[in-house]
Amino acid sequence: MSLAEQILEGNVRAAARLMRDIDDGRPQAIDDLKLLYPHTGNAYIIGITGPPGAGKSTLVDQLTASFRSQGKKVGVVAIDPTSPFTGGAILGDRIRMNRHSCDEGVFIRSLATRGALGGLSRSTSDVALVMDALGMDIVIIETVGVGQDEVDIVKEAHTTCVVMVPGLGDDIQAIKAGILEIGDIFVVNKADREGADRTARELSTMLEMRHADAEAWSPKVMKTEAQRGTGIDELINEIMAHRTFFLSSGTIYDFLRERSQRHFMSILRDTLFKKALLFMAKSGTLDRVVAHMGNYQIDPYSAVEEVVSEIMPDHID
Amino acid sequence: MSLAEQILEGNVRAAARLMRDIDDGRPQAIDDLKLLYPHTGNAYIIGITGPPGAGKSTLVDQLTASFRSQGKKVGVVAIDPTSPFTGGAILGDRIRMNRHSCDEGVFIRSLATRGALGGLSRSTSDVALVMDALGMDIVIIETVGVGQDEVDIVKEAHTTCVVMVPGLGDDIQAIKAGILEIGDIFVVNKADREGADRTARELSTMLEMRHADAEAWSPKVMKTEAQRGTGIDELINEIMAHRTFFLSSGTIYDFLRERSQRHFMSILRDTLFKKALLFMAKSGTLDRVVAHMGNYQIDPYSAVEEVVSEIMPDHID
Repeated sequence: MSLAEQILEGNVRAAARLMRDIDDGRPQAIDDLKLLYPHTGNAYIIGITGPPGAGKSTLVDQLTASFRSQGKKVGVVAIDPTSPFTGGAILGDRIRMNRHSCDEGVFIRSLATRGALGGLSRSTSDVALVMDALGMDIVIIETVGVGQDEVDIVKEAHTTCVVMVPGLGDDIQAIKAGILEIGDIFVVNKADREGADRTARELSTMLEMRHADAEAWSPKVMKTEAQRGTGIDELINEIMAHRTFFLSSGTIYDFLRERSQRHFMSILRDTLFKKALLFMAKSGTLDRVVAHMGNYQIDPYSAVEEVVSEIMPDHID
Repeated sequence: MSLAEQILEGNVRAAARLMRDIDDGRPQAIDDLKLLYPHTGNAYIIGITGPPGAGKSTLVDQLTASFRSQGKKVGVVAIDPTSPFTGGAILGDRIRMNRHSCDEGVFIRSLATRGALGGLSRSTSDVALVMDALGMDIVIIETVGVGQDEVDIVKEAHTTCVVMVPGLGDDIQAIKAGILEIGDIFVVNKADREGADRTARELSTMLEMRHADAEAWSPKVMKTEAQRGTGIDELINEIMAHRTFFLSSGTIYDFLRERSQRHFMSILRDTLFKKALLFMAKSGTLDRVVAHMGNYQIDPYSAVEEVVSEIMPDHID
């Protein structure tokens, strides 16, 4: 039985194995993903993003507990940025969300595959797809919003929650543009801290100032204390309200079209490159080109032109 | 006269224009880069990386002043991470290094082109190449070491300085692996702060513990107070010592080979993709595929296979 078939029967070990195959870039993983694809689209994907120290992991932990108490199965994809400075990814799955570790209705996976072919957002979407196929009702993607890569990741989510903390002070100016666009819900966590009301108010003002379409979703600012579980139920209600809007307004169709287009482009890019590498390795082209560049006989741009003319026929020009 | 020719005559405006063309991804930029390529390899490239708040910009400013006092022309490529949270890139060229703004021997360029085709490290290497061709003796690449993208950038440098600050405390364990590998010189900046000696000592110990090849370069830990200019001359001496090692040990040949190979791969990847997009747009393949995916008639993986078989002929399999 293929991994895909085992996963569709709810086999958690098979899902873990396929995720490992995806990480390792094994070609057969693609065959399994293809088989799973028609059986996906059932999970609701929630993105949780925000700066380091905002308490995202604790929030995800509480959301997971809450969804579990409703009997929903929850998958968590935690993106640990592999910064050489912050360490990242060191925490890993093991010390994450210990209290759910014996719960079969929770599937947690940390990703730190920076530099992987296709990038982190591809790995994330593939892993979310496997969780979806495995029967998870909710998939939470948690990511530190530090760069474009992470911003791309939240595009995979149906509802994106941006988590902030009080005390950003004047820096709130700095978070304007990009961040206001990506959030469907804004969460001021650690709401017991001084300045929480001010941060929430400033965020609300900034959100109101946008010239939003009257028919568009208008994001709310919620307050939570994830550590104590305060505000979690209200947040879940708001997520569900956004979900209802998302499904009934037809936004979901744009979302699905854009997502499949993005996946297609990303896969196409890698596939062409991999095929070209194989060809060059077999034909000895790669060695020849590298030797020429080493001698400064040819610049990399011209070298690429030479190789591409061999690989792609003229008729496609 | 082409931009390339003007740049080779030292025309700063032409250099700025070509950099803009590179940013915008204009195809003719490649022709200019090709013309410049044989005239490069003269600039010495120094990478400065480290966590936010380590004082990198001030250090770069001081290094620039010091190199200028030696009569050397200095180019600076400052990578501002475009984080939606930290703002980044907002500072830009204008408020950077004001005191050098009237000095024709200094060329400063901020890059924040996340998401650009080929990525940030490609843009960085292209901009450094233009500065090299323009006659800069030293090119300093300043980057916040937050992700793989930034780590890739320092690979463009001949000498990489990793800047730290005192007070990392126990977190120093977290910076181990990756960061020790990329630094040729380690700088403890803000050395007047409490704990500077301890941080320097811990770094030294960690560096000594590595099983280094006896013939390899052994990185030193330097202390600076960039704000006051303390330790800058010593740092420059150490950079020059590394340069001497780099050139005399033959390390430079490996460096050049790896760099041209890396550039070639990156350009190849983009070129194949761009050509494929053009073909698909002309032939209507793109619209057809997107429509099919929208209806869930085909998964993105199978869609790519179908398209690739049209684009790349069988004989290259």
